[in-house]
Amino acid sequence: MTDKPRFAILLSGCGVFDGAEIHEAVLTLLAIDRQGGVFQCFAPDIPQMHVIDHGTGEPTSETRNVLTEAARIARGAIADLATFDPAAFDALILPGGFGAAKNLCTFAVDGPECTVDPTVEAALTKARAVNLPIGALCIAPVVLAKVLGAGRLTIGSDKDVAAGIEAMGATHQETTHGEIVVDEGLRVVTSPCYMLDATVSQIAEGADNTVAALMDMIKEGQPRAAE
Amino acid sequence: MTDKPRFAILLSGCGVFDGAEIHEAVLTLLAIDRQGGVFQCFAPDIPQMHVIDHGTGEPTSETRNVLTEAARIARGAIADLATFDPAAFDALILPGGFGAAKNLCTFAVDGPECTVDPTVEAALTKARAVNLPIGALCIAPVVLAKVLGAGRLTIGSDKDVAAGIEAMGATHQETTHGEIVVDEGLRVVTSPCYMLDATVSQIAEGADNTVAALMDMIKEGQPRAAE
Repeated sequence: MTDKPRFAILLSGCGVFDGAEIHEAVLTLLAIDRQGGVFQCFAPDIPQMHVIDHGTGEPTSETRNVLTEAARIARGAIADLATFDPAAFDALILPGGFGAAKNLCTFAVDGPECTVDPTVEAALTKARAVNLPIGALCIAPVVLAKVLGAGRLTIGSDKDVAAGIEAMGATHQETTHGEIVVDEGLRVVTSPCYMLDATVSQIAEGADNTVAALMDMIKEGQPRAAE
Repeated sequence: MTDKPRFAILLSGCGVFDGAEIHEAVLTLLAIDRQGGVFQCFAPDIPQMHVIDHGTGEPTSETRNVLTEAARIARGAIADLATFDPAAFDALILPGGFGAAKNLCTFAVDGPECTVDPTVEAALTKARAVNLPIGALCIAPVVLAKVLGAGRLTIGSDKDVAAGIEAMGATHQETTHGEIVVDEGLRVVTSPCYMLDATVSQIAEGADNTVAALMDMIKEGQPRAAE
């Protein structure tokens, strides 16, 4: 359909405290578009762990659906993660936000003993099976650590989360604003973004660098395991 | 507090179909940060006109608050528009999204006969009274047209909306991707953004150009009417 690099974006809702971090998600889409790629957003069709009033920071009595809320970031152009086929994409990116640790998996509550949503686990396992390059921002590397049980990853410099990542079998590497960690073997790229107290420009830099590293992996043209 | 240009951002919710357009809002914040400014987000503390399921495009039975939802884009750092003091800012920007025409005013329902939320009207009137430069993206210029009843504005090329703007006393100028219209007399800058079928990069270009034009107005240092 296109000869442009095709990115699948896995969103976890809409809003930093209970869903996908909005700036990271939008700036990932911008980086892909500016670097000549195309994107399709996905999210699992599951209830959010909870809804946080982003004005007060307190939980509300509402219930919201991850796919429905993520559609706000995607301007309606979103697909159910259950339909994700890695053969149709050249890379997969998980922006951050608490939704990655509350909806995609239960790391925010259970730490390294967390469980991963079955649709998310299936998508990541399928992606890994065909050696698809994967990017993850902010807290989202915890999902990769849990599913892959390996890899060199970064969430910045938070010692508790870094320890959790190591407890799940991955190796943590400390980073600061805009930096990325590239695991060439697993073809995984991570960047700390709002796991640090960052500016919007620093988030854009982290997203840009993550997308650029994934573009390099795509260009290297390493044959997919399944092909 | 700061010698950097200070931008107030007036949000109308969170999501293109019933609130602020998320890409336009985030890319406005990015443009301000990259061009050396600082920002504070505001929204009126009022119910949304309605809630749209962004996956299906259909209204739901939910009720949501404009300020509470806008806080998602602002990562919690938002203020009630009722507290807006134009003396504390160097410019004001309204990103687009249907929220501008459904929550800030009733243009989406009532067209040129629309009413404007009283808090929004007061904020814009106060801003205009001190000659504060004002930017508006996408559909948001309709709010300016109604409150100011004058000005040279753009919403792109939609003939019905353009006719509505003219019926409210402003003059419409057709534009395409990334272009801006500058009304030097009223100190108003507008850009069509997602009123056209645009890419994320084109939205970033429109936001960049709008912020740059406002920065120029700020640097010109025209004394504020109230000073």
